[in-house]
Amino acid sequence: MGTEDERTGPASDRVRLRRRRERGSHDRASIDAILDEALVAHLAIVMPDGQPLAIPTLHAREGDVVYCHGASAGRTMRTTAGGAPACLTVSLLDGLVLARSAMHHSANYRSAIILGRAREVTEPGEKRAALRSIVERIVPGRWREVRPPTDNEMRATAVVALAIEEASAKVRVGPPADDPEDHELDAWAGVIPLSLAVGAPQPDPLLRPGIELPEHLRRYRRAGRP
Amino acid sequence: MGTEDERTGPASDRVRLRRRRERGSHDRASIDAILDEALVAHLAIVMPDGQPLAIPTLHAREGDVVYCHGASAGRTMRTTAGGAPACLTVSLLDGLVLARSAMHHSANYRSAIILGRAREVTEPGEKRAALRSIVERIVPGRWREVRPPTDNEMRATAVVALAIEEASAKVRVGPPADDPEDHELDAWAGVIPLSLAVGAPQPDPLLRPGIELPEHLRRYRRAGRP
Repeated sequence: MGTEDERTGPASDRVRLRRRRERGSHDRASIDAILDEALVAHLAIVMPDGQPLAIPTLHAREGDVVYCHGASAGRTMRTTAGGAPACLTVSLLDGLVLARSAMHHSANYRSAIILGRAREVTEPGEKRAALRSIVERIVPGRWREVRPPTDNEMRATAVVALAIEEASAKVRVGPPADDPEDHELDAWAGVIPLSLAVGAPQPDPLLRPGIELPEHLRRYRRAGRP
Repeated sequence: MGTEDERTGPASDRVRLRRRRERGSHDRASIDAILDEALVAHLAIVMPDGQPLAIPTLHAREGDVVYCHGASAGRTMRTTAGGAPACLTVSLLDGLVLARSAMHHSANYRSAIILGRAREVTEPGEKRAALRSIVERIVPGRWREVRPPTDNEMRATAVVALAIEEASAKVRVGPPADDPEDHELDAWAGVIPLSLAVGAPQPDPLLRPGIELPEHLRRYRRAGRP
């Protein structure tokens, strides 16, 4: 992310990292940690007319699989569930990298990319578990507090699974990487850290009187950069 | 984003919003505001083998065009610059929507999607202006403080332009949309707001002594939800 950086996907090993190897990784622990911290994924598919489409979606990883869901009637879910080639990307933005030279400006980030064909999840037990994972990924402990899906709701929702087989992580950390001869310039250089901040929970205006904010929501935080 | 929500892209009018129309918009002001607030875009292209690939990238809008850049030698940039169908998506996450029922859990967000074929920017003036826009989009006023690109740096960097012609915005705001019969349940319901927080700037360890943090960086903030 930035001029000094490029992720490539060659045909023979499409997630092999060709450039800036020091930032890339096929390490499953790194990939999983990024998938688990991110609240939003971008799911890219190719529509029947050849047009790629990247849509933001909630997701959840369970072991070697990432689940996403959407309305059964939606074009995107139908295409994905039909086994079209897919790409799921998550990106965590950790900072802005301000260099002394324009072209070394960059971002500190962690991203993970999974390539493959999605499988529609139709077995009721796995489908329910996947939906549970997605709710629990948003707020751990939430599933047991809320009304579970009805059969009609289950039918109206499509769940797709993408196996973590062809996957890579990419990370940029640290200060700017200016050319040595630029270190004498007068420009300030460094990093502006960015993180996801959690605000005070806002009760639904229709909330029944007497329902207190649960303690685990009062303490809700997102994991930051390790 | 969430079970109750789906963005679709039909073939005849691929960015037409079919479902949940109340959340969709083709309004240019809405699209532009989302593009301008987002620090990161996801650029999706179809690789020659048919595999879609979505990569995080910095971007900048100038009028009716969005620019991205990357290493000239990178596979992604070469494919994009070659005129492959592309999709640029930006997503801003504003909150987590906690409903009384599992399936109405969702996210408050603003996203914009642009479809089209990218054009490689080769004219030196436009290319330099595009790179300036990307740096200025990260930190307004930064370009004049730093060393401009050399001819070699310009050659090593590819810039692509995507016209904002086929585009849509999608926004979810407000409290959960529980079914009326669920309002009597005991679960707390509401929204946990999320925003991008800016930390204290971290000077490059190699920063020359005596260079103070400029005032505009001391006051650096990202625009929040309007």
